[in-house]
Amino acid sequence: MEPVYFDHNATTRIDDAVWEAMLPYFQREFGNASSRHGYGLNARRAIDKARRQVADAAGVQPVQVIFTSGGSEANNLFIRGAADSLKPGNLFISAIEHPCVLKPAQALSRRSCDAWAMHQLTVNASGRVDLDAASNAMQKNKPGLVATMLANNETGVIQDVAHIAESARSHGAYVHTDAIQGLGKIPLDFSALKVHAMTLSAHKIYGPKGAAALIVDKRLLLKPLIYGGGHENGLRSGTENVPAIVGFGVACELAQARMTETAQHVSILRDQLEKGLASMDAVIFGSAAARIPNTCYFALPDIEGDTLVVKLDKAGFAVAAGAACSSVNPGQSHVLNAMQVDPMLARCAVRVSLGRSNTLEQVDSFLRATQHIVAELKQISSLSF
Amino acid sequence: MEPVYFDHNATTRIDDAVWEAMLPYFQREFGNASSRHGYGLNARRAIDKARRQVADAAGVQPVQVIFTSGGSEANNLFIRGAADSLKPGNLFISAIEHPCVLKPAQALSRRSCDAWAMHQLTVNASGRVDLDAASNAMQKNKPGLVATMLANNETGVIQDVAHIAESARSHGAYVHTDAIQGLGKIPLDFSALKVHAMTLSAHKIYGPKGAAALIVDKRLLLKPLIYGGGHENGLRSGTENVPAIVGFGVACELAQARMTETAQHVSILRDQLEKGLASMDAVIFGSAAARIPNTCYFALPDIEGDTLVVKLDKAGFAVAAGAACSSVNPGQSHVLNAMQVDPMLARCAVRVSLGRSNTLEQVDSFLRATQHIVAELKQISSLSF
Repeated sequence: MEPVYFDHNATTRIDDAVWEAMLPYFQREFGNASSRHGYGLNARRAIDKARRQVADAAGVQPVQVIFTSGGSEANNLFIRGAADSLKPGNLFISAIEHPCVLKPAQALSRRSCDAWAMHQLTVNASGRVDLDAASNAMQKNKPGLVATMLANNETGVIQDVAHIAESARSHGAYVHTDAIQGLGKIPLDFSALKVHAMTLSAHKIYGPKGAAALIVDKRLLLKPLIYGGGHENGLRSGTENVPAIVGFGVACELAQARMTETAQHVSILRDQLEKGLASMDAVIFGSAAARIPNTCYFALPDIEGDTLVVKLDKAGFAVAAGAACSSVNPGQSHVLNAMQVDPMLARCAVRVSLGRSNTLEQVDSFLRATQHIVAELKQISSLSF
Repeated sequence: MEPVYFDHNATTRIDDAVWEAMLPYFQREFGNASSRHGYGLNARRAIDKARRQVADAAGVQPVQVIFTSGGSEANNLFIRGAADSLKPGNLFISAIEHPCVLKPAQALSRRSCDAWAMHQLTVNASGRVDLDAASNAMQKNKPGLVATMLANNETGVIQDVAHIAESARSHGAYVHTDAIQGLGKIPLDFSALKVHAMTLSAHKIYGPKGAAALIVDKRLLLKPLIYGGGHENGLRSGTENVPAIVGFGVACELAQARMTETAQHVSILRDQLEKGLASMDAVIFGSAAARIPNTCYFALPDIEGDTLVVKLDKAGFAVAAGAACSSVNPGQSHVLNAMQVDPMLARCAVRVSLGRSNTLEQVDSFLRATQHIVAELKQISSLSF
């Protein structure tokens, strides 16, 4: 039997409708979109259409969409590209940003010249950026660049991006939000978020790997990360990955159309899941804050997260310990650390991220399997003492 | 009828065997390779296999392969990544490099601090880097970084990379070659080329768009272009595009296995093509030098390249005027400029790049169509005076 997939914040299976739209662009319409013959023009038209679809999902004009190969590239493009277009100053990022925002920011702060001073925006125990602390910090050190994600990939906690952006803008700063985990799960409007740039990605919304976008305000100055033939208005060179971009466009359209329905569906599943976990004395991280509806980040005290993930995998359930995107660098979650979670409890963290295809039956059997594993582990642990 | 595709240096149709190998990784095995559950492990294994296949094609160890989203990214990763790991010095690139080498090099030379001094290696009339001039130039300004492509995308002219690399190494420089147009067309061996880094790409060898690699010598220090979760040994973060990487691996394997056969096939076609073009008084650029066997870059005096490309497109033949990769920035070919081709003749340049599926019949009908168009254009031009 196919394992139950409960790891939708890591990646998703391509939707059938997305797949159908992509298919012609692998072998039949395989042209290079920069070519001036028919094959090239068909590829260009497909990209233009996808650009409109992505723009619509964010409430912006197509010209504001810069396609990239992925979310990490888009986030790096903002951090380095904006920094190198400005006089070095203070860079603020939230303490819970994804490594692909955190690490390029650190790199900026460490370079030998034109270095930026990096500051972190702290979060409270529920995983939300502390708005008063952010305001005070930016009062003390005038910000040049600010990045704060829309919804955290581990906890699912939704941030008050507009509030932070407004405060940052009052100091003349440029503001970015990584909205990858928000797209398709909560309403998304570029203007309402008051940011200058926003990252979206295809493979978290039932689209393909290999396509993402940085949405930009026209007033934002950027230097490219990848120079070359001048694609994407000179901001991202390289032959366009046409099928992936086509899939991204359709995935955006579907994500918008299905948002309410999906949110309702996964909310019911998550409620059921968290009721079951509560009866097992689980701690649910971020549950005091507003969260995207599909994410449940929990800890069963004394049950190590890594161990539980491996045991659940054997039992037929795919879940994550911490964030998959950084699991090549295992270690304690910097998100839970920022929330000042007891390190002993943080080691027990497991993330379930639900998706459209999941069912109540899957949640119930997951709860049974977890109960079984916990009982087994407690028995082993009581035997070994 | 499907137009005849004669633009294989711009991109290629995915081979059926490559496609078959990729298919399972879109919807069935869709995991994030960083996930620790079964879906993730299957994705990781697929990437490991592709890494071995790409390494084999270059004659290197798998650990030397850094996967990127495309050739432009790989070339930028070398230029900026190597430069930022060294003390700024002299950067030499050949005058005929692709814009994705030329432009990041220019950007390095223009930055306000840690700028590098950029120098160009000149080419002779046949399109080959002038080895004596290169040696003298590097004697005068000790090189830190050197980049010289293996085969030019416009002319197809093969460069003596090993000779230039040896000369550069004698000054302690690090050397890169963009081998994208060489792979699958001429024998490729990383050690024999004596470089420290080499770029390969999937979509020019009947593989998918969205996957490429920078092959590196273990002694080369690099800083990442894209920071984040630490993928690709920390040198290229971002969720791996698993199906594209899988396709790249298989495409490399096939490119190697079929190289002799493909080269023989397209050589016969090109000979036929160039015989026909010669009878129309065409100039063949780079024909005095060794070229990859599929490329014919020609000019029919007084027939503007752009016009011919559009007319040929209408007649059912997809060819390129200059390089597709930079045709978003039209203008005169910097390659022909470097070869000191008369600008009036350079405006007439058209590139035919042949592939495995092309036939002698297609070449013959292309020649007939071209003859017809030329006659028509000459008539119009004689009428308008």
